[in-house]
Amino acid sequence: MNLSNLLNKKFILFDGAMGSMIQKENINTLPELLNLENPHLIRSIHKKYIEAGADIITTNTFGANNHKLKKYNVDSDLIIKNAIEIAKSVQKNNLIALDIGPIGRMIEPMGKMTFDESYEFFKKQVIAGEKYGADLILFETFSDIYELKSGILSAKENTKLPIFATMTFSDDKRTFTGTDIKTMISVLEGLNVNALGINCSLGPDKMESLVDKLVKYSSTPIIVQANAGLPDYQNGNTIYNINSNEYNEHTKKLMNKGIQIIGGCCGTTDEYIRKLNNSRKQIPFKPVFDKNYSFISSYSKTYDVSKNIHIIGERINPTGKKKLRQAIIEENMEYITNLALKQKEEGAEILDVNMGVPKIDENKLMIKSIKEIQKLIDIPLQIDSTNIEVIDNGLRYYNGKAIINSVNGKKNSMEEIFPVIKKYGAMVICLTLNEDGIPETMEKRLQIAKNIENTALKYGISKKDLIFDFLVLAVSAQQNELYNTLSTLSYVKNTYNYNTTLGVSNVSFGLPNRKILNRTFLAMALQAGLNLPIINTSSQDMIDTINSYKVLANIDKDCKKYISIYSEQKEEEIKNETL
Amino acid sequence: MNLSNLLNKKFILFDGAMGSMIQKENINTLPELLNLENPHLIRSIHKKYIEAGADIITTNTFGANNHKLKKYNVDSDLIIKNAIEIAKSVQKNNLIALDIGPIGRMIEPMGKMTFDESYEFFKKQVIAGEKYGADLILFETFSDIYELKSGILSAKENTKLPIFATMTFSDDKRTFTGTDIKTMISVLEGLNVNALGINCSLGPDKMESLVDKLVKYSSTPIIVQANAGLPDYQNGNTIYNINSNEYNEHTKKLMNKGIQIIGGCCGTTDEYIRKLNNSRKQIPFKPVFDKNYSFISSYSKTYDVSKNIHIIGERINPTGKKKLRQAIIEENMEYITNLALKQKEEGAEILDVNMGVPKIDENKLMIKSIKEIQKLIDIPLQIDSTNIEVIDNGLRYYNGKAIINSVNGKKNSMEEIFPVIKKYGAMVICLTLNEDGIPETMEKRLQIAKNIENTALKYGISKKDLIFDFLVLAVSAQQNELYNTLSTLSYVKNTYNYNTTLGVSNVSFGLPNRKILNRTFLAMALQAGLNLPIINTSSQDMIDTINSYKVLANIDKDCKKYISIYSEQKEEEIKNETL
Ligand SMILES: [Zn+2]
Ligand SMILES: [Zn+2]
Ligand SMILES: [Zn+2]
Repeated sequence: MNLSNLLNKKFILFDGAMGSMIQKENINTLPELLNLENPHLIRSIHKKYIEAGADIITTNTFGANNHKLKKYNVDSDLIIKNAIEIAKSVQKNNLIALDIGPIGRMIEPMGKMTFDESYEFFKKQVIAGEKYGADLILFETFSDIYELKSGILSAKENTKLPIFATMTFSDDKRTFTGTDIKTMISVLEGLNVNALGINCSLGPDKMESLVDKLVKYSSTPIIVQANAGLPDYQNGNTIYNINSNEYNEHTKKLMNKGIQIIGGCCGTTDEYIRKLNNSRKQIPFKPVFDKNYSFISSYSKTYDVSKNIHIIGERINPTGKKKLRQAIIEENMEYITNLALKQKEEGAEILDVNMGVPKIDENKLMIKSIKEIQKLIDIPLQIDSTNIEVIDNGLRYYNGKAIINSVNGKKNSMEEIFPVIKKYGAMVICLTLNEDGIPETMEKRLQIAKNIENTALKYGISKKDLIFDFLVLAVSAQQNELYNTLSTLSYVKNTYNYNTTLGVSNVSFGLPNRKILNRTFLAMALQAGLNLPIINTSSQDMIDTINSYKVLANIDKDCKKYISIYSEQKEEEIKNETL
Repeated sequence: MNLSNLLNKKFILFDGAMGSMIQKENINTLPELLNLENPHLIRSIHKKYIEAGADIITTNTFGANNHKLKKYNVDSDLIIKNAIEIAKSVQKNNLIALDIGPIGRMIEPMGKMTFDESYEFFKKQVIAGEKYGADLILFETFSDIYELKSGILSAKENTKLPIFATMTFSDDKRTFTGTDIKTMISVLEGLNVNALGINCSLGPDKMESLVDKLVKYSSTPIIVQANAGLPDYQNGNTIYNINSNEYNEHTKKLMNKGIQIIGGCCGTTDEYIRKLNNSRKQIPFKPVFDKNYSFISSYSKTYDVSKNIHIIGERINPTGKKKLRQAIIEENMEYITNLALKQKEEGAEILDVNMGVPKIDENKLMIKSIKEIQKLIDIPLQIDSTNIEVIDNGLRYYNGKAIINSVNGKKNSMEEIFPVIKKYGAMVICLTLNEDGIPETMEKRLQIAKNIENTALKYGISKKDLIFDFLVLAVSAQQNELYNTLSTLSYVKNTYNYNTTLGVSNVSFGLPNRKILNRTFLAMALQAGLNLPIINTSSQDMIDTINSYKVLANIDKDCKKYISIYSEQKEEEIKNETL
């Protein structure tokens, strides 16, 4: 059996719970230790699932990390070795998934475990998994996407195994640390997992709306492994309240919605899996397809930036800003996070973060700033640097799917940036300049854009993750080309549906009364199809223009937000009008 | 010989001066009286011109109007009767043009002669011209376009004769009363003359730049009849300083530029015409073609409203304005003209004039307002009424080519308005509504626009004179359709190149902080292709937006006007930026 022959071609069936099967035998040790103490039991459980029809069996290694194993004085390598050997001993025409659950400690910023520590625990596990012959890795039952990211990175950087990843959601449609379905998809697809989905916590009856969202937003094969309903404690045993028939009926509903991979979680047994195996033969399989969302996210908030508009706050950038430069030099994090908070309050939906001060450790400052800002606010960030190491580390430690500012049409730039974008998952601002500088004509800028798009594709990065910047120059210097910028914007929007950004305030450089030029240009650019205006959110004129645009462009439905912001001014207005 | 076989098909040759030929004979009476006193002389002059090759000879009737003839106690009808009979007596294969010069009194507002009095003088002449057998009417040597308009209207309303019209220009490229070439073309083409052009005052050597403009802007066959240079007084005789060879060489240059009709004016004789007749056989004829300018004008200022943008000031409209309503009722012209002056100062380039107050004599007030406003300011007006009589009279007494506000897609409206537009020459705002009201969808509004365009064409009115209004409704009421308004605007601009107008401030009705919605919508609409924003020019925000737009859209070249307006604010700005 070969994963690539199955994936997104037919329903893949996982096994059910390991724990519940062990519990049946009334054994009360750490389940992972049974790989050493009672291999026979584990072997028999695998065997039952294989006989029930599972395509993939999951090793008994959910908690097999050196944090959890520490007090038992046993190494994860040994547990995983035995677990895989057991699975292999009964393997027929089925695949073996190395099961990896959370480490069991809270990761930063809520906990004390660092991203790197988490990474190291997982690294031992995934290396062992590959070494002893697992066919794929299943990260499952994660609540914290940041921890999951560290695990996936450890697998990507240390093995060649396919990666499946599932998270566990509460009734409120979020994970314990606040990640929603869209955000999970955004981050996991950025990391290029082979399958993603949800498991545990809820029964299949409570998963319908989550599955609807998965099917709507995921371009990656979708896994669903539900519990057998809610647990009930009877005579010291945990019983789950959905029997195999009910479970089967509910799961069939989910399969009909368009998921690709099924299996069981807590409370399910080979009886459940056998029924699913039967059901999957009766339900038409729908492959997942590319949804082409241009997602960016923090750990809890995701935008499709191709829709509507999203304001990028430009002010965490020391260029020409004395006080900020000083704060960066002094590592005055409070100054930086205040700037972040203020911009969010003013209406920024994404924050550019640039630490480009000469002679400082930009790399360190970028990581620190990202972490400190993400502690306090939940909007996505744009990592802004000319240094590839800074960009790499920024993306590594960022919790979510960021924007990178920027790549350009130079060969060197693309060779440096694109592999990093592909590895971590990010959107990237593409400046339409190249070795010859900024072309004077829009035709040439558009040619550069096309070249960037084609080159990105060779790295496996598609148009949906590119944001083009056709470069606003000062109207006082290049009046003719400036007007072409907007025509080009409008043209590429209609013709190529590119995502676009513009640094709006450049337009007025060198002229008096800059704010009226800026706000007028902003409105024109939005009408021409600008997605991501980079603006100074402390300018009330700019914010007023955005708020008005959202009303006029039918984004602020029924003018609700607009009225809530401006209604105190209403009476005065009406008075003025009767003049 | 038939005019329609000649016009715009080959060079048409007029005769030369009548006065100079008479002067040769040392006769010092009123030339027109010679039709009675010395028909032989006039006959011999016509004969010489016919022998020289003229296609059209001009009757000896330049001053034959009852104002000039009053003191001679002779009626214009008699002079014209004799003049045409003389011309007919020598007619060979040539046409006879009834020559009509200015009345000889200043017309209102500079003089005391009313438009109607002027009309009546001309009416007697043109009726006589047709009655006694002239083939066409030549209005020539006019300085005042308003007087010329009264003449052309008298000819259109009382005869079926073709109309040729020429005006006389000074070195400053304007007529004595300030009309430039573009304005002359705009008004005369609006009145549907069969040929238009320039004559007298200048020699052909000084006419090159005027002819360049004629060729650039006229869609009507172009007449040029230059003087034989500047007059010189020798021995009590007037001598002209360009001889027939020089005259011929200069005129050939003008012919090569693309004029269609030539002839001589003061100082030219049959010798000059003979040479032109020879020359025209050697020069390739270029027919005039439709230039498709969307011209509107006052008597001295013309815009092509399809280019760039032009602000229509909305405030001379009593709807919802108590004070203006009162002023109209009281015929307080000072209040109205002050409103006009103020709007022009604020930046209005066109003024809407609406006198719609119930129970007043709207017709009288409209004529009076137009006349009083035109006395003081020189920008084009937009005549705004729902009453066809008011529109008809407004157009009749307006000095220039106005905009009419408005026609709509109702059958009645089009049947009433289009004939008036065709007769006087005007652009017209076309509201995209019909018998069923304002359609909710933009598709249907566009269908109405197409129907209006097609119906207009049946009346001989082409797209260039139509201005479409896709009707801005309050975003608070029709948010979805409002956004479509801008998409439609953009679409019709790209697809049909329609001229468009919008009453911008309707958009914010019922919402707080209307000015930010209005100014943002204005910028968006301009970007989408709006030509003629109807705005309240007393709103600084709107004017700032327009001024900024003109910079950003490369209309205000090198930001010159912008800098001149806002530069005093520059220093303060720079201070703010260093914060
Ligand atoms: Zn579970
Ligand atoms: Zn003359
Ligand atoms: Zn003349």
